[in-house]
Amino acid sequence: MDNKRKVILDCDPGHDDAMAILLAGSKQSNLNIEAITTVAGNINVEKNTLNALKVCDKAHLDDIPVAQGSDKPLVKKMEVAKEIHGESGMDGPQLPDTPSKEPIQAHAVKVIIDKIMQSDNDITLVPTGPLTNIALAMRTEPRIIPKVKEIALMGGGTFGNWTPAAEFNIWADAESAKIVFESGVPIAMFGLDVTHQALATEEITKELAKIENPVAEFVVDLLTFFSKTYKDVFGFDGAPIHDACTVAYLIDPSIFSFEHVHVDIETKGDYTYGMTIVDRLGVTEKEPNVHFAYKLDQDKFWKLFKDALQTY
Amino acid sequence: MDNKRKVILDCDPGHDDAMAILLAGSKQSNLNIEAITTVAGNINVEKNTLNALKVCDKAHLDDIPVAQGSDKPLVKKMEVAKEIHGESGMDGPQLPDTPSKEPIQAHAVKVIIDKIMQSDNDITLVPTGPLTNIALAMRTEPRIIPKVKEIALMGGGTFGNWTPAAEFNIWADAESAKIVFESGVPIAMFGLDVTHQALATEEITKELAKIENPVAEFVVDLLTFFSKTYKDVFGFDGAPIHDACTVAYLIDPSIFSFEHVHVDIETKGDYTYGMTIVDRLGVTEKEPNVHFAYKLDQDKFWKLFKDALQTY
Amino acid sequence: MDNKRKVILDCDPGHDDAMAILLAGSKQSNLNIEAITTVAGNINVEKNTLNALKVCDKAHLDDIPVAQGSDKPLVKKMEVAKEIHGESGMDGPQLPDTPSKEPIQAHAVKVIIDKIMQSDNDITLVPTGPLTNIALAMRTEPRIIPKVKEIALMGGGTFGNWTPAAEFNIWADAESAKIVFESGVPIAMFGLDVTHQALATEEITKELAKIENPVAEFVVDLLTFFSKTYKDVFGFDGAPIHDACTVAYLIDPSIFSFEHVHVDIETKGDYTYGMTIVDRLGVTEKEPNVHFAYKLDQDKFWKLFKDALQTY
Amino acid sequence: MDNKRKVILDCDPGHDDAMAILLAGSKQSNLNIEAITTVAGNINVEKNTLNALKVCDKAHLDDIPVAQGSDKPLVKKMEVAKEIHGESGMDGPQLPDTPSKEPIQAHAVKVIIDKIMQSDNDITLVPTGPLTNIALAMRTEPRIIPKVKEIALMGGGTFGNWTPAAEFNIWADAESAKIVFESGVPIAMFGLDVTHQALATEEITKELAKIENPVAEFVVDLLTFFSKTYKDVFGFDGAPIHDACTVAYLIDPSIFSFEHVHVDIETKGDYTYGMTIVDRLGVTEKEPNVHFAYKLDQDKFWKLFKDALQTY
Repeated sequence: MDNKRKVILDCDPGHDDAMAILLAGSKQSNLNIEAITTVAGNINVEKNTLNALKVCDKAHLDDIPVAQGSDKPLVKKMEVAKEIHGESGMDGPQLPDTPSKEPIQAHAVKVIIDKIMQSDNDITLVPTGPLTNIALAMRTEPRIIPKVKEIALMGGGTFGNWTPAAEFNIWADAESAKIVFESGVPIAMFGLDVTHQALATEEITKELAKIENPVAEFVVDLLTFFSKTYKDVFGFDGAPIHDACTVAYLIDPSIFSFEHVHVDIETKGDYTYGMTIVDRLGVTEKEPNVHFAYKLDQDKFWKLFKDALQTY
Repeated sequence: MDNKRKVILDCDPGHDDAMAILLAGSKQSNLNIEAITTVAGNINVEKNTLNALKVCDKAHLDDIPVAQGSDKPLVKKMEVAKEIHGESGMDGPQLPDTPSKEPIQAHAVKVIIDKIMQSDNDITLVPTGPLTNIALAMRTEPRIIPKVKEIALMGGGTFGNWTPAAEFNIWADAESAKIVFESGVPIAMFGLDVTHQALATEEITKELAKIENPVAEFVVDLLTFFSKTYKDVFGFDGAPIHDACTVAYLIDPSIFSFEHVHVDIETKGDYTYGMTIVDRLGVTEKEPNVHFAYKLDQDKFWKLFKDALQTY
Repeated sequence: MDNKRKVILDCDPGHDDAMAILLAGSKQSNLNIEAITTVAGNINVEKNTLNALKVCDKAHLDDIPVAQGSDKPLVKKMEVAKEIHGESGMDGPQLPDTPSKEPIQAHAVKVIIDKIMQSDNDITLVPTGPLTNIALAMRTEPRIIPKVKEIALMGGGTFGNWTPAAEFNIWADAESAKIVFESGVPIAMFGLDVTHQALATEEITKELAKIENPVAEFVVDLLTFFSKTYKDVFGFDGAPIHDACTVAYLIDPSIFSFEHVHVDIETKGDYTYGMTIVDRLGVTEKEPNVHFAYKLDQDKFWKLFKDALQTY
Repeated sequence: MDNKRKVILDCDPGHDDAMAILLAGSKQSNLNIEAITTVAGNINVEKNTLNALKVCDKAHLDDIPVAQGSDKPLVKKMEVAKEIHGESGMDGPQLPDTPSKEPIQAHAVKVIIDKIMQSDNDITLVPTGPLTNIALAMRTEPRIIPKVKEIALMGGGTFGNWTPAAEFNIWADAESAKIVFESGVPIAMFGLDVTHQALATEEITKELAKIENPVAEFVVDLLTFFSKTYKDVFGFDGAPIHDACTVAYLIDPSIFSFEHVHVDIETKGDYTYGMTIVDRLGVTEKEPNVHFAYKLDQDKFWKLFKDALQTY
């Protein structure tokens, strides 16, 4: 475990969150998962926590503490994405009702703060849901800010999926996103521009189905449900496994192409709440604060993902 | 003139506005220019009017009435685009200080209203500047709204050039844009997504320079200045002749590919004032109100433009 | 008529608009009504025009041109105040369905522009509804701005009646209000702070009922309905005849106490659209642009009103 | 101490915060101060903490834990009120540079959470600065919300002092205010409407100067500086000791008159950020969430204050 990169997965599983966890937890991964923390997002935080625990069960990630976090956004009213992820927040696979273990007692925000304060400034945060926990941690203990190594997050983009202007994770808590994007911590941002390139087509799903182990079967069940949603709601030929991009980047950064740009978060607007304003033309002349991923090498990405599933 | 399509060019020349006028006024054009109306935008309205008159002089468009319009946006404070178009609003070519004729006495808004009220519902509006005149005409005489045949406008896009989110024309008067986009008149929208494809590269400028007439020389002088601006400010290899797309479409619609979508105009927001929110994924489930041009056939476009210049 | 002060009444009658007209048109008034123009507000513009014509009939104001104006606000969606003024916009008195004359052909905005352009800079505008017509006139013909003598308007206040922050007239078209308040024309503002002091209590209504002429009877019928509304909706002991304050001021300015302050118009905000931000403590250090009436001499006011009714 | 009402004073001293502490800590007070927590506001949080400690020294409140809290607002950029409170945040009295004790190690937010979680639901929060700490506590540990007995806060009003629409405390962190006002905890709100009635005139200051003890002398020094500020900036004849109203209410509620109304917090708006929208006319028909103090019995108030000072 010595040379492994330390990460905290802050998530709202969620089909693609699950795949991010499985990728990070695979045996050939160079990541050490310090904790999984949950947040209200795709579905309410209790269900997200249950789903995180079930994913850990399925993948035998028994030693990872799972801590439940914020049950609502920082300032705005809560709204979940039931249309995309189903009633459970992770519909599709047949899973036992009750996971084998409980979340730890400590609140996610406390876990994040404690882990970072006790670290050698070597923890990377991997938020794949709304940024409520991260923002609360930064505001209740500002000393963590210079100690976070990097934030690799799924969110935003130059276009939206929940509104025409905003992606769901940022839209779900734009005030928290504003806090995080203005914090000064180095950010690698995986928005819709690049995560839509991580499209699990029918062909890819068939490939994955050839891997004969329970985790791969679980993934195929997730993708089958998720692809149907994306077909019905957006007319896509497959499901983008958005959140897995963050972990793929931490394992192999060469999969992605980046621009170093300034990104602002819109918290007002009649039509643009939760938009990430990505200044790709440099018209604001503001300092870059984000490494914006705009391109994904699909062959490399899917090879990484398949290899990871085969280790289970 | 019988079968020609009637247009009113509402503009703020402006290098690319000039090219829109020249394209519309060329001898093989199927358009009949009922009037040229001016509006504050790239530069103040007095200079825009002077520039319009000078373009008419250069092209011997002697019979077209030019009417001056709004000297400021509807609600917001005024700001011009001197960085892009120079002090005169149309820097580059050497032109006489004083055009040969004066604008007509009537205000642009009155001209627009009168022409449309007296028409057989066959006038197309071609705004290539801020939408102030059109909005004022719609609000002071709402009966024109069902009588306008179509609006083919340059403005907006899924990204911006004046701010990261907003294109200059819409940003310059978003309240007017909101009025126009919500009016119910059929709109063909030529935003940055497509107008950046109408890029006058060095190669193209050289081709145009082979046409030996004063109008072509004038165009080459405009492009030389405009390309330098786009190189300096945006790092482009050439200048997009945004506004000419509107007229090219009216002459030959087959040059462009369209999506029929809903577009909203943001008039609030810390970072998004003047943004056109183009719902390409259909997430709002609102009725389409815009034919959004997203692709331009470059060969056809430049052939049309060259052919037009050759008629002078 | 020589020494009379020239006014244009721009209104949406409306119970209290009617009383403003009657006060201005009374025989001892020092005002010359150049025109009555109507605007969408308390009710739709067609009904407001009908009501204006009926008030003129009742008061034998036969020579005053009535011109219909804007049928909706400048930018926002329209909403009327049926709760306050009833289905007709002026419920209460029994009136013939059809007035004796028609509105003139010209649009209100054109009437306002033409009257002012032809004037010796001696016309005062008296808006008692939303400011749509005035704003449109200023934007389509900016040369009127330095020629308007004064604007005496009913609108706004340091608190609201339509929302907790906004008074109806300003809320109904805040973008137009912003244009007018930022125009530089001298403004005397009669907001709720002072118009709520012009409260027609039961006692006052009884006094007015003693005046034996049809106009006074008409006024009593208006007050009876209007007081009931104010009782039911706001719990008031009587009806404030808001709009009449503007005319009372033009006849006898000594009725009111004023502060010269800066007023901004809010066009954004989740809860504050249409608010007039009155800087009474001077914290903005902006130039005063409004004479803000904050106190009314009730004895003088009602004496003026009674005297006026007695001249009919 | 058994029957005393338990309070946490969350403050940014601050002249009037100091007087709130002294009132609460006086020997005849029926309050038990569980903790004093500080927050960025009138001045930065480090200076506010120093000032809180110095006030405790002066008043021999030796056993009260002082915990430092948030160093900036939740979402917006920070701005302090140096104009009002001077460089130290509590200019005027001569005080030792260094207080006799240090703040406790724990962060204010943790102290608030722990005290409330361990309580018998009998703690009242008394915020007299921006609401950042309270909002963070509510969001990181939502279980405290139903356990808070009451919040008696200084903030807001139907008019502003920092902007024409907004009072400083709410303006300094409107997002936090929104969280607190929407939390469901019973709120007694002491805004400018009532705190401006707690005006320490020259006459009152002279009265207080007759009390011969160091705390009263300290108060007189504070009032002398504070009154000069209020004279210079606002033209007041004395200084309103805003924050002390909260504590006076807890000692003797009969000093104040209240309305039970709905209050919303504006977090947007060009001119209205941080405004408390107090629906006194009931036009929103929303459930009351605030006991809005609008009237103060001056005799009772100053008697209470004098009596309290005499106990030192």
